[in-house]
Amino acid sequence: MDRGAAKKKRPGGRSAQVRARVQAAVIELLSDRQLEEVTIPRVAERAGVHQATIYRRWGSVAGLVDDVVAERVGELAPIPDTGTLRGDLELAAIRFAEVIAPLGGIMIRAAALSTPHADTSVSFQKRAGQLQAMLDRATARGEKTPTLTELLEGITAPLYFHQLFFGRPADSDHAKALVDRLLIYVEAAR
Amino acid sequence: MDRGAAKKKRPGGRSAQVRARVQAAVIELLSDRQLEEVTIPRVAERAGVHQATIYRRWGSVAGLVDDVVAERVGELAPIPDTGTLRGDLELAAIRFAEVIAPLGGIMIRAAALSTPHADTSVSFQKRAGQLQAMLDRATARGEKTPTLTELLEGITAPLYFHQLFFGRPADSDHAKALVDRLLIYVEAAR
Repeated sequence: MDRGAAKKKRPGGRSAQVRARVQAAVIELLSDRQLEEVTIPRVAERAGVHQATIYRRWGSVAGLVDDVVAERVGELAPIPDTGTLRGDLELAAIRFAEVIAPLGGIMIRAAALSTPHADTSVSFQKRAGQLQAMLDRATARGEKTPTLTELLEGITAPLYFHQLFFGRPADSDHAKALVDRLLIYVEAAR
Repeated sequence: MDRGAAKKKRPGGRSAQVRARVQAAVIELLSDRQLEEVTIPRVAERAGVHQATIYRRWGSVAGLVDDVVAERVGELAPIPDTGTLRGDLELAAIRFAEVIAPLGGIMIRAAALSTPHADTSVSFQKRAGQLQAMLDRATARGEKTPTLTELLEGITAPLYFHQLFFGRPADSDHAKALVDRLLIYVEAAR
């Protein structure tokens, strides 16, 4: 067998179909059950795939949830490109606050249960890359731009905090206030 | 029976002793077990008190954990009074980051599991009151001062975020950077 050919994954191919079925099973199970009750045997049964396939590809329930979150956050809160940093940040913050409402509890619990650390988390790294590209566009336009850490700590962290401690998403005025605060800081600091 | 007298609670009295025993039992159980396995019957058994007493006083495991957290955070991270807002914020941030390391996972999981919302959480309200008093001292000295929300979102939220997604506390340089960022913002915004 040619090793390179065996490794190739066609979009829409068997591998993508397995992923889609497994992700759908995780989402269904999560809507029925507590995260703690979502197990690999249950996911395998519902998706109609071998448990071994899931273990090989995702390693653990935490890895599976991480992959689902990576996919869903990208879908539900695509990174905007409005032409201004403020516009991009506001739209991104408002959409992300909305995504956190249904997914946030799962994301927070998955992180707290099994600590898929940011350094290795697929969903975290993917999102970070998208946000960095958004910041790079602003820099290229000549705008004063926060670092990725300043963005994550100034906007993403408070949105999580709000969902975690108040049990509801920050509303759009709140999201805009976070953006305003970050941009006042960046204007003063650069 | 005189109702007023029955309601009085002497510090160090029977009520305080029950609280101390129950809190110790919760902390012991939490160090042995997952939060999900900490139940009121187990706490009652270990503390040597009736289950009914615990249900009456704390209502749920979430309420119990909230009470423990309120006590431990105040003990482990007392609010400083250094004479300057920057000094107070830096010390508070550094100590809180350290407290989050052992307690943070529990706090986050307790919040995510049972959502003791900030509006009703004993530990959240107590901490908020202490931080507001710290800010009021700064205002009284004539310093430009963030609001409590700006403080929680600018410092506390990123400290949680870091612990949650990186699985380790923010170090003291990181904590100081958060304070610096908040004070640059406050200086520019007021």
